[in-house]
Formats: sequence, structure tokens, C-alpha cells
Amino acid sequence: MNAYPKITLVGAGPGDTDLISLKGLKALSTADVVLYDALVNEALLEYVPATAVRVFVGKRASHHAYSQLEINQMLVAFARSHGHVVRLKGGDPFVFGRGGEEIEYAASRHIPTAVVPGISSAISLAGLQGIPLTYRGLSESFWVITGATTAGSISKDVYTAARTAATVVVLMGLNKLAEIVQVYQEAGRGQLPIAIIQNGSLPDEKIALGTVDSIVARAKEEQIGAPAVIIIGEVVAKHEHFAQEQPNSIAV
Amino acid sequence: MNAYPKITLVGAGPGDTDLISLKGLKALSTADVVLYDALVNEALLEYVPATAVRVFVGKRASHHAYSQLEINQMLVAFARSHGHVVRLKGGDPFVFGRGGEEIEYAASRHIPTAVVPGISSAISLAGLQGIPLTYRGLSESFWVITGATTAGSISKDVYTAARTAATVVVLMGLNKLAEIVQVYQEAGRGQLPIAIIQNGSLPDEKIALGTVDSIVARAKEEQIGAPAVIIIGEVVAKHEHFAQEQPNSIAV
Repeated sequence: MNAYPKITLVGAGPGDTDLISLKGLKALSTADVVLYDALVNEALLEYVPATAVRVFVGKRASHHAYSQLEINQMLVAFARSHGHVVRLKGGDPFVFGRGGEEIEYAASRHIPTAVVPGISSAISLAGLQGIPLTYRGLSESFWVITGATTAGSISKDVYTAARTAATVVVLMGLNKLAEIVQVYQEAGRGQLPIAIIQNGSLPDEKIALGTVDSIVARAKEEQIGAPAVIIIGEVVAKHEHFAQEQPNSIAV
Repeated sequence: MNAYPKITLVGAGPGDTDLISLKGLKALSTADVVLYDALVNEALLEYVPATAVRVFVGKRASHHAYSQLEINQMLVAFARSHGHVVRLKGGDPFVFGRGGEEIEYAASRHIPTAVVPGISSAISLAGLQGIPLTYRGLSESFWVITGATTAGSISKDVYTAARTAATVVVLMGLNKLAEIVQVYQEAGRGQLPIAIIQNGSLPDEKIALGTVDSIVARAKEEQIGAPAVIIIGEVVAKHEHFAQEQPNSIAV
């Protein structure tokens, strides 16, 4: 039994290890246990004390994937037995990261918690590509939607979003791309610019740029795979290579 | 004339200096010039070389406020004369930060640019208060909207947002609070939980928790002022103090 159990949720950022916050690093350096996900760059574990326990809790082929309840229970058990548990999650812990459920479970077991926000891939990956999520006169809002709902279907929010001027960011939505395209086409927005970014902020980053009508073909050409972020809106045309990658455009 | 002009847009994060990224710190430590805004924590300037030029370009009482064009021109002129210019902006440079315009202007003058994303107050301040922006079964998206449109009126997106299940985050919207409340009330959502966070991540952080119907009074009681972030949605009820701050609730 440790006298000072504590759980800190830390956002690891989008992939580049230099995109973790100073506060996140400080939490890692005082960890007795680290539980980390598949989307976390493992190079960050170098900041963890050599004596700390490292537990991979993500899903990977040939690995048993832990349920959310099992993760919650492990967090609490390790806090009680070892002290400071860092729960290291890709991006920000509260953007589709189920951080809310972990905090709640810990609180119900009277374990103190702290949160260190992270740079979310929802916002940062567009910016790293020079695509501003908001731009005066083009977009005064952005809407971040998960492509992977509990029900397994496309979120209803996509239907509404397709009829607004909001820049739309879809996370974990690559395998729903055809459906998303159809929703936008039915809203009469086949010409809207769209980008898909794979492995954003990492050396093997890839991007496909197109319109709603052309993006499925463009993603295939660029061999885009998961994990990927989809960005839909006029602001995508601000990307420096947008114009020359469109089939009907005149090269500048 | 400097042989290596360069402009790096750096997101400073929401206020706490430990919430800047490692990459942001590295950019600051190699700056020849730093241009920074009012929302940037000035303690971050300690990471800038002593010889670097520091220019405050934000708006403050008794200061001349620079226009966006003047800032664009200064960025380019300093890059040409001094070399590496860091443009340090609160939060993330592309979330209502006009970073897109700065990148575009620099590119038109053939100055190389780089971007270091930041932790946006739009996402992080809710999380630091234990409010998850998304939560299974409650919200599968969040919509970030500016309260300060170019036209000076409330964004039309708020009207649409009030009729969706999205968690809504309004930045720079405190002086439009009464209008926002009215939009939600007209959509029949007076009982929806809402939070306003002032000076998030800083020692003088304050929060008001209420429903759409009660929040104007609650904000007054808590003496909330700008800068503030407004968060609207069922997820706000996840805040540990939500229940006991409601006038009709039973204390737990």
C-alpha cells in the first residue's frame, strides 16, 4: 500500500515527442507507473524513471486489448500499490480519449487525480500543414467529430455539420470516408476542399488533398492509411499545394 | 540583411508556462526577435536569449494596438533584418489566432515559415477543470466557435449549435453571454449545463457553473471577467462541483 496514491492523465500530443508539454514531461519524470496507448510515441518513455513500471494498454494485433473497466481498475490498483500513476494518452486526454471515465472511476475510489492537457491532433495536424482551422471570412468555427461512434455508425453530427460553414475535423474516420463523402455530396457540397493527414507530425507524415468529389481517389493515390485526421472546409484550400493537386486546376 | 530569414509561429498554450511544448521552448531559445500577444504569459520570455528583441503587439489600455497588416509587415521586416522571428501567440496559433494570414503574408514575401502548435484554451481549460469535452453516451463531438466575429455580432453557428448534441465551446464570447443564453433558451435548452472559466490554468483561475437559465446570475456571483471560455453541454455536469452549485439540487 502506497501512502500517496495519485493518477495523472497526461496528453502526449499528436506524435512528435517534442510536442508534449513541459508539464507532461515533469509528470513522466515522477511516475512510478506509466500506462500508455497505441497512439503514444514510445520514445516518450525515455523521460520515465528507469525503475518505473511500463504497461502498454493499447490495441495491437496479437495483443490482448484491455477493456476500459480493466484499465480503470489497473490505474487504481497501481496507484494504491506504487504511488504516482501516469496515464499517457495520445493527443489530449479528453478528446475522444475516455479520460472522463478514468477520472470518474478514480474519484469514486478516492484516488486524487490531476490532468495535463495535450496538443490534440484534432487541431494541431491541420496547422502543421499550414491549414488554418479558422480564417476571417471563411470560417468562424470548427467542429470536431469522431468517426467511430459507440454504435459503429457515422455520427449524426456529420449530417448537420455538412450543412454549416464550420470547418469539420473527423478523427478516427478513415474507414467511414465513403459515407462522409456521400453525406457532403447529398448536401450539395461536392466541390468543398478536403484533406486527409496520416501520421501527422511524424517523419512518415502523408497528406491527400482534394475535393469531396475527388478525395476517395486522391487518398488511394497517396496510399493513405490509419491513423488519419480528415479536415473538411474552405480553409483546406489555403494549403500551399492545394491548387496544383486539383485535376481541373491551372498550375500557378 | 540577414542571410537566413525565418518566421516560426509558436502556440504558447492557455497561460500556465509549463503548458508550452518542448518544441515551442526550443524555438524561443533560438529566437532573434519575439513578437507576442496580450494573452501570452510574459514569463515565457525568460526562455528567449537575452540579446533577442522583444516586441509586444497586443492590445492594452494606453498602448497603440497594431493592425494585422502592421504585424505582418513587422514579422517580415524583422526576419529580413534579424533572422529568426518567433511569433508567440496564446493557445494555438490557428485557433482564431489569425496565424493563417501571417503565414500567407510571409509566403508571399518568400520568407520560410514553420509552425509549432500549442495547447488551445478551447480544449484544455475544460479538461483542467475535469470537464471532458466528449463522453460516451453524452457527446460525440465538440464545436468551437468565436464569440467575436468580424461583423461584431454573434456567430450564426451558435444558432445551429444550440440545436445539436455537440459540446459547444465559445471563445472570446463573455460579452455576448446574454445573447448566447437567449439562443439556447429559444431552442428550449434552458436546463443545459454551462460553465465559464476565466484565467484558466493560472493561479487566479475562476469558474462559474450553472444551467443556461442560471448562468448569467452565476457568472455575476463569481465575478467572472474576460478572458473567459464558455462551455455548453451535458458534459459540464461531470464537473465535481456541478451538482451542489445548482439552486434546486440536493447537496450530496
